[in-house]
Amino acid sequence: MTRIVNVAAAQLGPIQRNTSRAEVIERLLVHLHNAAAMGCHVVVFPELALTTFFPRWYLEDPAEMNMFYESQMPGPETQKLFDAAKKLGIGFYLGYAELSVENGVAHRYNTSILVGRDGEIIGKYRKVHLPGHAQNEPWRAFQHLEKYYFEPGPSFNVWRAFGGVMGMALCNDRRWPETYRVMGLQGVEMIMLGYNTPVHNPPAPEHDDLSMFHNQLVMQAGAYQNGTWVVGVAKAGKEEGCEMIGGTSIIAPSGEVVAACSTKGDELAIARCDLDLCNSYKSTTFNFDRHRRPEAYSRITEQRGAIAPTAV
Amino acid sequence: MTRIVNVAAAQLGPIQRNTSRAEVIERLLVHLHNAAAMGCHVVVFPELALTTFFPRWYLEDPAEMNMFYESQMPGPETQKLFDAAKKLGIGFYLGYAELSVENGVAHRYNTSILVGRDGEIIGKYRKVHLPGHAQNEPWRAFQHLEKYYFEPGPSFNVWRAFGGVMGMALCNDRRWPETYRVMGLQGVEMIMLGYNTPVHNPPAPEHDDLSMFHNQLVMQAGAYQNGTWVVGVAKAGKEEGCEMIGGTSIIAPSGEVVAACSTKGDELAIARCDLDLCNSYKSTTFNFDRHRRPEAYSRITEQRGAIAPTAV
Repeated sequence: MTRIVNVAAAQLGPIQRNTSRAEVIERLLVHLHNAAAMGCHVVVFPELALTTFFPRWYLEDPAEMNMFYESQMPGPETQKLFDAAKKLGIGFYLGYAELSVENGVAHRYNTSILVGRDGEIIGKYRKVHLPGHAQNEPWRAFQHLEKYYFEPGPSFNVWRAFGGVMGMALCNDRRWPETYRVMGLQGVEMIMLGYNTPVHNPPAPEHDDLSMFHNQLVMQAGAYQNGTWVVGVAKAGKEEGCEMIGGTSIIAPSGEVVAACSTKGDELAIARCDLDLCNSYKSTTFNFDRHRRPEAYSRITEQRGAIAPTAV
Repeated sequence: MTRIVNVAAAQLGPIQRNTSRAEVIERLLVHLHNAAAMGCHVVVFPELALTTFFPRWYLEDPAEMNMFYESQMPGPETQKLFDAAKKLGIGFYLGYAELSVENGVAHRYNTSILVGRDGEIIGKYRKVHLPGHAQNEPWRAFQHLEKYYFEPGPSFNVWRAFGGVMGMALCNDRRWPETYRVMGLQGVEMIMLGYNTPVHNPPAPEHDDLSMFHNQLVMQAGAYQNGTWVVGVAKAGKEEGCEMIGGTSIIAPSGEVVAACSTKGDELAIARCDLDLCNSYKSTTFNFDRHRRPEAYSRITEQRGAIAPTAV
């Protein structure tokens, strides 16, 4: 028996600041239609897929800031995506900036949702690993103010959907093995994750030429070490003067890349993913119940930072 | 300032069952001398480097079994390694089967030690992640009875040595991101690990052609995700009819392979490793104290096996 999910990794090229929400949604709809025409069951869009990557600027005016957030999902403009999904019978993962008013207090999250083939929301994920910094650092060529713009989410969940166990993550989450493992421990079979990754990392420019290598390395390792599919989708190209990596990939539970984008623009990479390919990893080398040793891992949850032994 | 450790990854070709301990030690001494002649400070030998990989057989006779274990370290035969280390001023990591009698009870471990340039033992590690199985499974082309032959060790430690923070692991440990992370949380700057990895995995032969890819993937990811050097050293080649992978590599904190063996025999790969290269990872992308979210990781220590959501 096979459990096939036909997946489209829907890379986006740059979205400039003056691009309207309506224009962006037209691009997403093109992806949805093209993916549906190729028999796909689900489309994975990038992180913060509705606007430019605004954490590159330090904004103080709440009104200016709020233009980048969605306070409803679906909202007046994004409703079109849900309608198309339902009509086409195709699900999607979408990253966006979420403004949520809870008990009269505004909360802001870097969020993704998973929408089913019926156009209904299946689950929501709020980004756990917010990278960058919380204060304006004018010395940088551009900012990476995710710790200023967002609160972190609580943890990683999975949902039964598309015939298997689906998980979500966002961008920097993919560099942390804990991300994959927390979902692996919930039997995840496909992790969808969108990202916006500048080529240049101002605090460590010595890594810039390795940014694509690191992108692939962490997603391939996360897939293999948990016996899960990983669908990593970029917003790529030169956005407001900032060059972002592409590298959109669909990765098998073996760790092998089975489909990838080769441009930095709007592009679909498509794969026919058999969820049953997870089994041979989850039941042998990565049979967690047989081989894991949680009693040896206590530092992972008991401490946040590194504690090196005292120098002698 | 740089903190240079010159490292030799001392791959071994096969050791057959009838090869004497004395013959093996001569091969290790050749490696020690060649590494010292090239200015190395430390030599990393494989796992179970003194004998053939005996967990491929199911042995019941304790006397027969005990021939593969060391009950003293240094012992009458291994003393030569310690003497050479002291004379040459070169340290080493060595994997071996340890028989330890504690309160009159025999305990067996898959062990490694780190020996300093003065020929003294700095630290001992007992393998945490024992792969394979505990019962004889005659259907296999060969056994992998590590769960029969060894008790697991408690966890991963680090030691200040060779001017930095050194850690040890063994073979299957390298596939588990927890291994690297537990040492990363202790500020590890170089992880030494030996392995014996058959090309063929009887329960999952469909992965056999990926064995080298997986070997590299997990070590490169572990290095990058913790900003540490990784020195992975194989016992390679055809041993008692069982083909084992090579792939001995020295991996930088960037995840890049900087030195590697290209044969399946006795071979040295050498690198001049700057421990200060760890800093740019540990202080930026992988600044654990700034970016980790232990409160989101509780499943990692609270559960051993995967718990998938109930099917609906």
